[in-house]
Amino acid sequence: MDKNNHSAPGRSKTVAEPELFQGFAAKIPYLADPVAKLDRKLVDTVQEAVRRVGLKDGMTISFHHAYREGDKVINMVVQILADMGFKDLTLASSSLVSANAPLIEHIKNGVIRKIYTSGMRGKLADAISHGLMDEPITVHSHGGRCALIETGEINIDVAFIGVSACDAYGNANGFSGRSRCGSLGYAMVDAYFAKNVIMLTEEIVAYPNAPASIRQDQVDWIVQVDEVGDPAKISVGAARATTNPRELLIARLSAEVMEHGGYFKDGFSMQTGTGGSSTATVRFLEDRMRHLDIKAQWALGGQTGGMVDLHNKGLIGTLLDTQSFDAVAARSLESSPNHVEISAHYYASPMSKGAVVDRLDMVILSALEIDLDFNVNVLTGSDGVMRGASGGHCDTAAGAKLSIVAAPLIRSRIPTVVKNVTTRVTPGETVGVLVTDHGIAVNPNRSDVEERLRAANLPVRTMEELYQRAISITGEPKPIEFLDKVVGVVRYRDGTVIDTVRQVAK
Amino acid sequence: MDKNNHSAPGRSKTVAEPELFQGFAAKIPYLADPVAKLDRKLVDTVQEAVRRVGLKDGMTISFHHAYREGDKVINMVVQILADMGFKDLTLASSSLVSANAPLIEHIKNGVIRKIYTSGMRGKLADAISHGLMDEPITVHSHGGRCALIETGEINIDVAFIGVSACDAYGNANGFSGRSRCGSLGYAMVDAYFAKNVIMLTEEIVAYPNAPASIRQDQVDWIVQVDEVGDPAKISVGAARATTNPRELLIARLSAEVMEHGGYFKDGFSMQTGTGGSSTATVRFLEDRMRHLDIKAQWALGGQTGGMVDLHNKGLIGTLLDTQSFDAVAARSLESSPNHVEISAHYYASPMSKGAVVDRLDMVILSALEIDLDFNVNVLTGSDGVMRGASGGHCDTAAGAKLSIVAAPLIRSRIPTVVKNVTTRVTPGETVGVLVTDHGIAVNPNRSDVEERLRAANLPVRTMEELYQRAISITGEPKPIEFLDKVVGVVRYRDGTVIDTVRQVAK
Repeated sequence: MDKNNHSAPGRSKTVAEPELFQGFAAKIPYLADPVAKLDRKLVDTVQEAVRRVGLKDGMTISFHHAYREGDKVINMVVQILADMGFKDLTLASSSLVSANAPLIEHIKNGVIRKIYTSGMRGKLADAISHGLMDEPITVHSHGGRCALIETGEINIDVAFIGVSACDAYGNANGFSGRSRCGSLGYAMVDAYFAKNVIMLTEEIVAYPNAPASIRQDQVDWIVQVDEVGDPAKISVGAARATTNPRELLIARLSAEVMEHGGYFKDGFSMQTGTGGSSTATVRFLEDRMRHLDIKAQWALGGQTGGMVDLHNKGLIGTLLDTQSFDAVAARSLESSPNHVEISAHYYASPMSKGAVVDRLDMVILSALEIDLDFNVNVLTGSDGVMRGASGGHCDTAAGAKLSIVAAPLIRSRIPTVVKNVTTRVTPGETVGVLVTDHGIAVNPNRSDVEERLRAANLPVRTMEELYQRAISITGEPKPIEFLDKVVGVVRYRDGTVIDTVRQVAK
Repeated sequence: MDKNNHSAPGRSKTVAEPELFQGFAAKIPYLADPVAKLDRKLVDTVQEAVRRVGLKDGMTISFHHAYREGDKVINMVVQILADMGFKDLTLASSSLVSANAPLIEHIKNGVIRKIYTSGMRGKLADAISHGLMDEPITVHSHGGRCALIETGEINIDVAFIGVSACDAYGNANGFSGRSRCGSLGYAMVDAYFAKNVIMLTEEIVAYPNAPASIRQDQVDWIVQVDEVGDPAKISVGAARATTNPRELLIARLSAEVMEHGGYFKDGFSMQTGTGGSSTATVRFLEDRMRHLDIKAQWALGGQTGGMVDLHNKGLIGTLLDTQSFDAVAARSLESSPNHVEISAHYYASPMSKGAVVDRLDMVILSALEIDLDFNVNVLTGSDGVMRGASGGHCDTAAGAKLSIVAAPLIRSRIPTVVKNVTTRVTPGETVGVLVTDHGIAVNPNRSDVEERLRAANLPVRTMEELYQRAISITGEPKPIEFLDKVVGVVRYRDGTVIDTVRQVAK
């Protein structure tokens, strides 16, 4: 569907006098061509599809990152566009990963001039942190990306959407075919907003491929390619059962904070993350839910095998899934009627008419750094180099009744609790509790929660105490040497600038 | 989601310099209000919702007709708008029915100035046919309505969407609650395109109401009302088993035309209609499918209990459902993973990037009149008064490889085959075969089909022969006396004017 032709409400629009009927195919010639009618979207190569949509230098291309480190589409397509001679493109991927290191060459060669992304890692992030690009990248949250699209700042000319399988009209979901990524929650946004949609698919399957997450009335061109992604690399170890005592300690404490924070009641809602600690938290939660005989009405995410397990056991009513972190979640999305795919817009956009995050009771979040004011950095390392992603961090923190950051106090002799975060991604006012292996800190703006956690005899400290504890072990960290050049602009979910990332000196 | 802010591709848009972060709720104040965050869409009355969206005289309001004769929303809302003093509204309902007779008063009083609809019946249709309105109504097909919306001619300011149940954010489907209409295929279009969406619901259910056909990110306001529709009146007798010998004869012949027309192969696709004859056709078809050991890949519609029966027996792979004609279909939509809800845009819009109708092998259609050139009238009776609807008639006829019109040669001593149809809704070039109780006629542009039907010893006649047969029984019908005033403009699916309806003399 295309809403571009709409103008302001209540205006008296001049509608041209309608023409007279000239024949059933006069305005839609393919109707009279039995082959075109069925196969008109199929083209042999990405190059051909790119020519058909009329991509031009300076335009904006978009991608989804559902395959994460297993993605094969972004690098392939940008290489093709480079070979075709395109320049000055804006790359608007829902996120970028370590596997996107080949983009470095395309930035150097002027193929990519601007980048919008939720985050970046590895060599690409390192190069950009060291000043590779002329223009700073824009880092956004998952909800914030939708807001930037809705306000027109990100104006997607061509969305390249990699899927495992689609039919000849482009109907696709994340669980047909051999490379199943599960939810296509990010791609759904691009399919909706992009002016042109090119599907890259490993397989053309029989019509109709239903249900359709990406629908035929959104898709312009379809190209069959060898591979779009390796689902095995979506999240290595996301569902692993941790035996790390520190992770287990943080997990148990996180579950206790959830239990006693004030929102652990029948019908509650939650979002947890991935990784050993989160997975363990979910396990501890299960015991508590059974003990108190309560169930969650719904859980949001980023879904994992751990959440699917609780769902299958009847402890979580509905799973709302914007991204499937493992094969268990992808299979569940296909088979469970109450495991429901949602777009990133529905999930978290602050400019949508309703974002699920706003209805969350509790969310468990991570942190690279958290400071005395509870501001959280999930983007840059202690060396100032980008190595993370904004993701849904600030979206869920802003929406949830209680947002809980769980992190070890010290990682590889580097403190997590700092005086001031290197980069502010999530504002402290939206963070309720920090859980570490050295105790819990509660935001002074949540004295209600602090009272409850103290009443439950949980080890509540002040943030200052945790900070002192950290530096007593590691010593005061040396300040990072930054140059003046801004290499990244961090946008809050509402589009405002919440911080910048400067070039690191070495 | 809102695409209104988008402009043309490739333009160098001036994006305002982003502001600095001012606090997590600075731009979205409801985030800081725990009650508003959850309940901000709920208002007590339709009046309040109307005030909130800022409806003004001259604007366009829309409705869906999924409840057909059982609809309670259209009359109720227009009465409320009349009481509030609104004037000169454009009413864009996906269709209107006999139950909408109360609109006559609102037209007389100037509340409604223009009407877009797929059709109309009963007293309202009679009054308009006799010159009630100053401006002619616009009659469109289901696909054509989407096209008029996409080109901006129908510009929906406020969509009023009646549903049986939704949650406090507006998530709704057609099978929650007590008044289940099944597919919300028409409402999905309005929810997508309208600037403002007001949900009228019989019940507010627990969050999240999933799956959501109408999604929370599309809904502005929610009003609880006593009743939105009576599902029992959606289609009286749609699934009845006919014993009428003439209907059975037409049904058997229709099934034979389908079998021998050239497209009855494993994996075929079809759309059939409602009514005794269509239901019987589906029965006859079942025998032939079993005999030849073939299955349909999918069936499109307007779904009925008859199609659901074949689906459940494994004879139809996927049901694509833009409107559920009975409770059996509504239940199946909820329970069968391969009974899939689709929007009218996805179903039939000639301006969408892909309409299902274009992939149809065969469709069975009705006719009030069909003429020597195979043009079909499904709108006006032999007295010139409107008593029908364009529906998906011309959409499916244009898309299907073989469109079959099935109708009795004579109804109540009025011939169906005529020299020239009173009103042309579907152009003859898109109609392949006419099946009557007095034999079959094949469009001269389908000599391939005629050859096959003759080879199968089916009673093939010329249209002229059927016409002579009809008038030999009924006599030549008297011409209708029309006045000059145009009371209806019939638009073809591509937006062009295919005919007009003039005021009848008496």
